Amino acid sequence: MIDAIYWENEAVVILDQNKLPGRVEYIRCEEHHALAHAIRILQVRGAPLIGVTAAYGLALAVIKYRGSRSDLKAYYDEAEQLFASTRPTAVNLFWAITRMRGVFDRLADQDVEQIGAALLNEAQAMFVEDQNINISIGNYGQTLLPKNARVLTICNAGALATCGYGTALGVIRSAQQQGKISQVWACETRPVLQGARLTVWELMQDNIPVKLITDSMAAYVMGQKELDAVIVGADRIAANGDTANKIGTYGLAVLAAYHQIPFYVAAPMSTVDLSISSGEQIPIEERNHDEVRRMRGEYITVPEVEVFNPAFDVTPQALIKAIITEKGIVTPPFFTK
Amino acid sequence: MIDAIYWENEAVVILDQNKLPGRVEYIRCEEHHALAHAIRILQVRGAPLIGVTAAYGLALAVIKYRGSRSDLKAYYDEAEQLFASTRPTAVNLFWAITRMRGVFDRLADQDVEQIGAALLNEAQAMFVEDQNINISIGNYGQTLLPKNARVLTICNAGALATCGYGTALGVIRSAQQQGKISQVWACETRPVLQGARLTVWELMQDNIPVKLITDSMAAYVMGQKELDAVIVGADRIAANGDTANKIGTYGLAVLAAYHQIPFYVAAPMSTVDLSISSGEQIPIEERNHDEVRRMRGEYITVPEVEVFNPAFDVTPQALIKAIITEKGIVTPPFFTK
Repeated sequence: MIDAIYWENEAVVILDQNKLPGRVEYIRCEEHHALAHAIRILQVRGAPLIGVTAAYGLALAVIKYRGSRSDLKAYYDEAEQLFASTRPTAVNLFWAITRMRGVFDRLADQDVEQIGAALLNEAQAMFVEDQNINISIGNYGQTLLPKNARVLTICNAGALATCGYGTALGVIRSAQQQGKISQVWACETRPVLQGARLTVWELMQDNIPVKLITDSMAAYVMGQKELDAVIVGADRIAANGDTANKIGTYGLAVLAAYHQIPFYVAAPMSTVDLSISSGEQIPIEERNHDEVRRMRGEYITVPEVEVFNPAFDVTPQALIKAIITEKGIVTPPFFTK
Repeated sequence: MIDAIYWENEAVVILDQNKLPGRVEYIRCEEHHALAHAIRILQVRGAPLIGVTAAYGLALAVIKYRGSRSDLKAYYDEAEQLFASTRPTAVNLFWAITRMRGVFDRLADQDVEQIGAALLNEAQAMFVEDQNINISIGNYGQTLLPKNARVLTICNAGALATCGYGTALGVIRSAQQQGKISQVWACETRPVLQGARLTVWELMQDNIPVKLITDSMAAYVMGQKELDAVIVGADRIAANGDTANKIGTYGLAVLAAYHQIPFYVAAPMSTVDLSISSGEQIPIEERNHDEVRRMRGEYITVPEVEVFNPAFDVTPQALIKAIITEKGIVTPPFFTK
C-alpha cells in the first residue's frame, strides 16, 4: 500500500495529494513550516493523517532547532500555534498537538536532542497506532455489511486520509477480504473532488469495484435500490454523536434516512471530542471561494460571482445508525453517559 | 434580454450555450442536421427551448428542401425522426414535433414553398407563445413567495432554457420585480454545470442577487435556515405530478421535505405528458461517461473508472407542493382527474 507520509533522513516526506491521480509525487519537507503549509493547501488531508502530520511537524521543529536551550519552549509554543491554525474542524489535529505537548512537558529538563528524539518517537508510534486502529475499525465495521454489499461513500476516508488502510475505506477493505463487496459508489465530492481523485484511485489500485457518480446522483442511486449502506469518515464527533465530515455528508444522511438505508460513520476514538456535547459547537471551516469557481485553475463560472464554500457540515446523531471505532461499534446515545 | 434562438435569412441562429459564460457566440445553422446536432451536444438545451428548436428545424428542413414534391413526405418523416432521436426525456420535443406534424398534414395538398412558410410561421408562433407562457408562469409563481425570499434552484430553467424569461427563473424574475427576492442560491449542477455557467450568468445580467454553491451544499444551506423555497424547471411531468428534471432535483426535493421547505416546479403545460400516469414511465437519458470524468477536456479522475451518468431523475409528486403553469398553480392530485 502507498504511504501518504513517512520520515526519512531528518525530513518528513508527504505524498502530494493535490497531484493525484494524474501524478504520484512526493514532497520532502525539511522544516515544519513547509508541513503546516502542506496541510493548509490540502497536499496532506484527512483528519487522522492531519493529526499525525502535525505530530511529525512538531518533532521536526525541535530536531531542526538550532537556537538556545532557554528559547526552546517559546519556539515550541509557536510551532504548536502554527499547526493549530492550519485547519479548524478536524479535532485529530488538536488531539495530536496535545499528545505531543505531553511528551514535551514530561521532558522539560532534558536537552534539545533528547526532546527531539522523544517527539519523533511519539510521532512514529502514532503512525503505527493509526494503522492498527484502522484495521480494527475495518474488522468491526465489516460485520455490519450484508453479502454482496453495495456501499456509498463521500470524500476519501481511505489509506490516503490516514497512515494506512483507512477508516470508511478500511471497513470496505475488510469487507472485500470477506468477499462481501459487490459495488462501491464513490461520490466525486465537489469542490475539491477527493472522491473522484483519491477514492477512485485508491480503490482501483486494490481492485475493489468502484463506480463514480456526481454528488447529485446519490439520491437517484438510493431510489433505484442499488445501495445497502452509506459509510463515511469524520473530522470531529461530539459526545452525543453529531458528526462533522466533508460537505455533502449531511445531505447523504438525510437521503439515506428517507430511503431507509443505514448510515454509518467510521472513525478512530481520537476523532471524538468529549469536550463538546453537540455538533453546534463544532467550528466549520469556510475555504477559498475559488475552490468552487475554478477547476484546474480555470473559471467554470462568472469569476465575480458570490460563493458560499463551507468545507464541512454536521450530521445530527439521529441520522446515524452506528459509529464504528477501534474499540467497537457504538450506537445511540453514543458517547454521552 | 439575450435571445437563445432566432430566425434570420433562411437559417436558425442559436446561442452556443456550451461556450457560456466565457464567450457569447452564435452559431448559424443553415440546415436542419446542424440543429439536431446542436440539441444532442447541448449547445441548445432546456426543455421548452429544445421543443421550439425542433420546430424551427422542421421548418428549415422543408424550406431548404430541393427534392421532388412526391418525396417530400418521406423526407419530412426522416427529419422528424432525426429530431425525435436527439433527447429522450424532455417531452416538449415530442409535443413540438406533433404540433408541426399537424401543420404539415393539414397542408398535404399545398406546394413545398407554402408548407415551408406555414411551418416557419408555426415555429415563430411557438416562440412568441413560449415567452408569454413564461411571463404568466412568473406572475402566478411569484405569489407563492414571501417577502425577502431566499430561493434555491438547480440547472438553468431560465431565459436560456426557453424562448425568453424562463420558467423557474421566470418566477424569480417576477418576484424580483415585486421587490421580493433577497437571495437566489444557484446549485452548480454537475456534471455539465448549467447552474454555475448559465444560471449565474443570466441572473447577474439582470442584477438579481445570486450565490453559487456546489450541489452538495444545498442541505447545509437548508439546515442553516437560509432558504424559503426551492423552485425548479421540468423536462416531463406525468399526469400524477411526478416530475423528471435535471439529475439532483429528486435529492433536493427530499432535503426540502426534511427541512419543511416548500418545493415548487415551474413549467409550461407542454411539459405535462397526460399519456403517462406516473413517473415510472419516463425514459431517463444516460449520457456520455466523460461528462463526469472530464472537466474542460481534462480528466479529473482515473480515466478508466466506471461511471454512472443519468442526466435526469424523477421527483415523486408527494414531495411537490405545487406545479406552476401558465394556466395557474396546480396542486395535488395535479393532472389526474
